[in-house]
Amino acid sequence: MQLNRHFDKLVRNYLFADVARKTAEFAKANPETEIIRLGIGDVTLPLSPVVVSAMKTGCDDFLHQETFRGYPEYEGYDFVRHAVAAYYKSFGVQVDDSEVFISDGAKSDCGNIGDIFAQDNTVLIPDPVYPVYVDANIMSGRNIIYAASSKEDHFLAMPDKNTKADIIYICSPNNPTGAAYHADQLKEWVDYALRNNAVILYDAAYEAFIQDDLPRSVFSIDGARECAIELCSLSKTAGFTGVRCGYTVIPKELTRNGHKLHELWYRRQATKFNGVSWPVQCAAAAVFTPEGQKQCMENISYYRQNAKMLSDMLDKLGIDYTGGRNSPYIWLECPDHMGSWEFFDFLLKNAGVVGTPGEGFGQQGKGYFRITAFNSHENTAEAIRRITGCVTGA
Amino acid sequence: MQLNRHFDKLVRNYLFADVARKTAEFAKANPETEIIRLGIGDVTLPLSPVVVSAMKTGCDDFLHQETFRGYPEYEGYDFVRHAVAAYYKSFGVQVDDSEVFISDGAKSDCGNIGDIFAQDNTVLIPDPVYPVYVDANIMSGRNIIYAASSKEDHFLAMPDKNTKADIIYICSPNNPTGAAYHADQLKEWVDYALRNNAVILYDAAYEAFIQDDLPRSVFSIDGARECAIELCSLSKTAGFTGVRCGYTVIPKELTRNGHKLHELWYRRQATKFNGVSWPVQCAAAAVFTPEGQKQCMENISYYRQNAKMLSDMLDKLGIDYTGGRNSPYIWLECPDHMGSWEFFDFLLKNAGVVGTPGEGFGQQGKGYFRITAFNSHENTAEAIRRITGCVTGA
Repeated sequence: MQLNRHFDKLVRNYLFADVARKTAEFAKANPETEIIRLGIGDVTLPLSPVVVSAMKTGCDDFLHQETFRGYPEYEGYDFVRHAVAAYYKSFGVQVDDSEVFISDGAKSDCGNIGDIFAQDNTVLIPDPVYPVYVDANIMSGRNIIYAASSKEDHFLAMPDKNTKADIIYICSPNNPTGAAYHADQLKEWVDYALRNNAVILYDAAYEAFIQDDLPRSVFSIDGARECAIELCSLSKTAGFTGVRCGYTVIPKELTRNGHKLHELWYRRQATKFNGVSWPVQCAAAAVFTPEGQKQCMENISYYRQNAKMLSDMLDKLGIDYTGGRNSPYIWLECPDHMGSWEFFDFLLKNAGVVGTPGEGFGQQGKGYFRITAFNSHENTAEAIRRITGCVTGA
Repeated sequence: MQLNRHFDKLVRNYLFADVARKTAEFAKANPETEIIRLGIGDVTLPLSPVVVSAMKTGCDDFLHQETFRGYPEYEGYDFVRHAVAAYYKSFGVQVDDSEVFISDGAKSDCGNIGDIFAQDNTVLIPDPVYPVYVDANIMSGRNIIYAASSKEDHFLAMPDKNTKADIIYICSPNNPTGAAYHADQLKEWVDYALRNNAVILYDAAYEAFIQDDLPRSVFSIDGARECAIELCSLSKTAGFTGVRCGYTVIPKELTRNGHKLHELWYRRQATKFNGVSWPVQCAAAAVFTPEGQKQCMENISYYRQNAKMLSDMLDKLGIDYTGGRNSPYIWLECPDHMGSWEFFDFLLKNAGVVGTPGEGFGQQGKGYFRITAFNSHENTAEAIRRITGCVTGA
């Protein structure tokens, strides 16, 4: 009996544990300070009433013989797949209902999608980025190379012609930097993937925050249907972090070595997954109704206002940052050349504000810091007042 | 770019597709016949009101700031883990809350648990059995050996001292045979696993159907905490096939090569899973309340009555079978030496009854047939009347 030895190579990421510990210590030592958490990557506003109503109707269906629902389809109910395809159409992207797989969340799909690829592929992962891509591929024993991004490229890594990769993760708008690719930049990635016979795993979890003329889907780019899989989630679109629902789109044209990746993923899901809860799928479909979209966009507008307030503050302070406009995340250069953790301690001590040190998201995060729009207007305003006070006073 | 070439080795199981096609053809040719489906592996009764009520309260929590729930714990909320541990205690098995992982279903866990093991392990799988164990391990490129069971051992495969295995799947009560191990038989498996340094993956999905003095958990066997992981589900216990919730128990004592399997599974889930929907977890906890248990057991009693009626029929007809008493499944020897598909066609044509040909569950299923208790009393009684008529008339 051998365990998966690749787990030994996982670096334990103490970031969030260390953030929590330092925050708890500060809270204990300073009981009079009301700590404001701008480190949260989770939504804070209640769900839309029309969504909860659909979820409850789904629950009631379980009570009666005529409406009872047993095992769902592995790939999701047709009406939910259709709702997702129609949503894509609303921003000009053609996706067939049958190309949409409903799941319990983009994180599951981001990790599990690896099952359809051989172990001996080289995986290209941007730095900084959501740490799950790295860990999932370490567990699978894959060779990982990094696409470093920095202030110079506005934290939008671009392909390097001298590098060969087989699987490419792209997250746009990016977590943690909030930076989002332009169409011509994405086109470079698509062309690179096509040239290298690679597959792009495109994480669009934050697409609903895009307000400028930027791609909301990789499938808005010519050629992407031959080289990309898109992973998306209702966590940020509709506040579903606790509801658990996402979707993955695999075009029928996407083939490698004569195999349709769509069929491989179906087979994977049919074997290791049993579909999404009925009331959750009812709720997901409600997100895409006109009333659902209206209510969900109200929540997103609320977060956007917080992001705008935080961006305005950084503009005034003359601090460089990315994100904040097409993303709930703002990624800032720590002032006065402070390190990530140094600035964390500084903010906590002087402002009672908690953020996230950038180095938790990769080597390129050193000297950077993530703050988020997931909070109340009141807390955000108070955090701004305090940060401004201590940074200008520093 | 290489795809996972192990997928090529998957045998496409056309069983359920063929059953559906043949049934549809018969229905079209015989519109006057009301077909009775005894092939269903899915529950048919509505959920318990107390469970749906808890689920709806969970939905309402999403409506208000004070009760809103975002990202759940990867391993499940403490109160649900505690409820599962208390449930184990109710039948005399000690499991710590912290050893319980809540998931979206046993099928996901059955497949995903493979992530913590190296590829170069030999997997021992009973024949016949739930086909998912085989497919999940083919996908991972593992060497699979089979433990054949037959009429002689009452379809309860026992360990072979001359065979060396690293990972052992056991399903008791078994799907499809309905056979359930006695404690002394399970003890043989535990001893075999301990001798071989192997790990047992024990699928207890049908444990709630056990009424005789048989183990409901592998952890009722001495030594199991050093060699077994238990996977269970609320699908059959509480009719959760469409709700999606299961649990996996990994004892803290279970170590291999100095690593706790509990820690590896936690790391796997933290990386590739984001927890179970809040209303679903609320519903799961309600299953384990006294009122929830009472209502769920009423449904199980209902199915048990169907199983009893079907068993009585087979006794009268002098047909050999396993299951039916501690399981919703009955596994019968096809009369008159008919093959699985021959008997399928015979029953469909002469009785308008659909079952499942045994060979869909493994080589040892040839000449056998699965019928299930998941139906109404009325349909079950009518099916019995028809089957008795055509088998005795044949």
